[in-house]
Amino acid sequence: MAELRKPIPVKEAIDRVWEQRRDGYTEYIAITDCDNRRLAEDVVASHPVPSFPKSPYDGFAIRSEDTQGAGRNQPVSFKVIEHIGAGQVPEKQLHKGEATRIMTGAQIPAGADCITMFEICQTYENDEQPYMSIKRKMDSGQNIIEEGSEVAKGELLIPKGTIINPGVKAVLATFGYSEVKVSKKPVVGIIATGTELLDVDEELQPGKIRNSNAYMIASQITRSGADYRYFGKLKDEFEASYETVFKAMDEVDILITTGGVSVGDFDFMPAIYDKLGAEVLFNKVAMRPGSVTTAAVFGDKLLYGLSGNPSACYVGFELFVRPLLQHSLSNQNPFLRRVKAELLEEFPKANPFTRFVRSSVTYENGRIHVQPSGIDKSNVVTSLAYANALMVLPGGTRGFRAGDEVEVLLLEDQEGQGEF
Amino acid sequence: MAELRKPIPVKEAIDRVWEQRRDGYTEYIAITDCDNRRLAEDVVASHPVPSFPKSPYDGFAIRSEDTQGAGRNQPVSFKVIEHIGAGQVPEKQLHKGEATRIMTGAQIPAGADCITMFEICQTYENDEQPYMSIKRKMDSGQNIIEEGSEVAKGELLIPKGTIINPGVKAVLATFGYSEVKVSKKPVVGIIATGTELLDVDEELQPGKIRNSNAYMIASQITRSGADYRYFGKLKDEFEASYETVFKAMDEVDILITTGGVSVGDFDFMPAIYDKLGAEVLFNKVAMRPGSVTTAAVFGDKLLYGLSGNPSACYVGFELFVRPLLQHSLSNQNPFLRRVKAELLEEFPKANPFTRFVRSSVTYENGRIHVQPSGIDKSNVVTSLAYANALMVLPGGTRGFRAGDEVEVLLLEDQEGQGEF
Repeated sequence: MAELRKPIPVKEAIDRVWEQRRDGYTEYIAITDCDNRRLAEDVVASHPVPSFPKSPYDGFAIRSEDTQGAGRNQPVSFKVIEHIGAGQVPEKQLHKGEATRIMTGAQIPAGADCITMFEICQTYENDEQPYMSIKRKMDSGQNIIEEGSEVAKGELLIPKGTIINPGVKAVLATFGYSEVKVSKKPVVGIIATGTELLDVDEELQPGKIRNSNAYMIASQITRSGADYRYFGKLKDEFEASYETVFKAMDEVDILITTGGVSVGDFDFMPAIYDKLGAEVLFNKVAMRPGSVTTAAVFGDKLLYGLSGNPSACYVGFELFVRPLLQHSLSNQNPFLRRVKAELLEEFPKANPFTRFVRSSVTYENGRIHVQPSGIDKSNVVTSLAYANALMVLPGGTRGFRAGDEVEVLLLEDQEGQGEF
Repeated sequence: MAELRKPIPVKEAIDRVWEQRRDGYTEYIAITDCDNRRLAEDVVASHPVPSFPKSPYDGFAIRSEDTQGAGRNQPVSFKVIEHIGAGQVPEKQLHKGEATRIMTGAQIPAGADCITMFEICQTYENDEQPYMSIKRKMDSGQNIIEEGSEVAKGELLIPKGTIINPGVKAVLATFGYSEVKVSKKPVVGIIATGTELLDVDEELQPGKIRNSNAYMIASQITRSGADYRYFGKLKDEFEASYETVFKAMDEVDILITTGGVSVGDFDFMPAIYDKLGAEVLFNKVAMRPGSVTTAAVFGDKLLYGLSGNPSACYVGFELFVRPLLQHSLSNQNPFLRRVKAELLEEFPKANPFTRFVRSSVTYENGRIHVQPSGIDKSNVVTSLAYANALMVLPGGTRGFRAGDEVEVLLLEDQEGQGEF
């Protein structure tokens, strides 16, 4: 039953699934719940900032023309007619010889055109009436933060697609976005296949291993900003398996199966694609790990058959699934960010196919360094735990030495880039 | 009522709060809920990996001694006595001249000591009995993944304090950690002060601004892995404000107030510390922004008075609060990661005090670059949205030029470092 498979280059595989990308939906959520979601609309200044002329200091608001005669030995006195704190609104207009005591951030009273800092003023009382005097000339506009001097009304502040971090949230609050329009999380289904799989809470049995891929993929889906739904493990029976897959497709935007795609006698997935009538985009990729990755289209949904091997499964998700999720979430930079780095230790293996080595990126003296995060055996699951990057070693290369420059894909970066 | 404040160096301020750090608590949670939590115990291999000798290929398990006479023109035949898939357990022991058909990952049957790849075997039937033949000599142990060859039982896999990413979760699942012991999230209270503050859903009014700091801080708390509780805005009345603070202390591990710490006439916070009998650790720091940051100890809890200025508030949280939260979460590297970077544009301002410039770090050709993420006016809130780093410009420096090497603190990094 082993079918002939033709491996295609990684870039071509990515292009084929990328053509199938779908725009996502949007929803409004409370600002308190918007952390790490992506904006589904531009955030625009709903008012100028500041929205009124304000004082940068604690001090006094006065008319600059009243200080024209002031000098080191010639104090000029002002009658303090009002005292306003931040958030209090001035009620009195200033006239000649009058001053208003003002706090940092408070609105400038009508009539005033400059602020003197509290520290340079003398204050005193006369008949219980407060006064102040200064010995300096002031200019019109001095120490006044003008309305709109920081942000003009209508200005584009944060573009659609941006992930909401603490700073973005502050902007949303400032401009009154109590409800935030965000991209709805796409839903990705997970189905595990493999009769060798035990549940995580089962005792180990001879010849069996616990199902780690379903948990790992769920976590990758969550990290990418989407929601997951786990449909359990396929039974070792074709019709029941077909039914499970068919029904799951109805509840998700994308369905991932792990395992069941190698050329083994007990693998149902190719037959399930056949019976669904799904169009197979590719079923073999010229890469390691993950060569037996399959992608297929069924209606407006995508089906991925990722390898049962943990590293292959992990890489398959990041390369082929994550970009489409990012697109659906309005991320303008849906692909993993790729940077150059200096290899810290040799990687002597030849690479007949493009190899994605789970790696750890570190920084030293302004440079980016990278080293494999574990032995590169395809079944060693622990090295994934320390991976924050995938080193990309092009096919046809004959090994790399310490000090060589290599490219790495950053796994924990939220910004991404526009192309693979 | 303006009191005399003595600014202390940033490092000393950090040391003073760091001395007040408290160990956190732990809890067990389901593996499905453990993303981004931190391990509160070492993860240890509960069994060797693989837990049984297994096959790396689809092929046949045989006895190598039976192939000793094999050669290019001398095929050796085997009777195929069993056929096992991954997860199926071999039931028959091999004897001379016998083979077992085996799938990738399946357990090696007793008696066999090597695996031949399917592709190099000839298969045929004789009287409905399957046979296979090969033309190569095999070595004992060839193509067998030995029990424990990847991980030994009892091996430390992931140390306590590590944040749970998809790879860590895969390890947890593999070793049967259906419940995971994690650090309990500390609870941080937030109280806003300032009569000028409107709620986010209120219409703008003259002289007022919306409360953005409470939302921003909540988001910073969430990003740091802790939980927040928002107690609203203090009333403009001392006794009521005191009561709010006093009661809030009971429900949180750390309490943050924003605003109300500058030397203005309407600021209650110093008087509230007084009445609580809280020990003030510092109330002024030689830094920009954020010089009017206060920290105080009340019983076994910490009180922070962060500036009402958004940038100062943001920086104050990251420098003084986050490390203690990370410690409570068992992070062995509780301080923001500090790396060197090349400044992309000049920063001509002199720095009488240490300055933390909200900045954006980028990567090019293996090097780390940094540039300020906005105008460095203390009230410009939008630049925080684009900040993924804080550039650290030491006090006493006279401005920096493009191309200079500077230090930056990475805000979105999860790994951190052991010291400030």
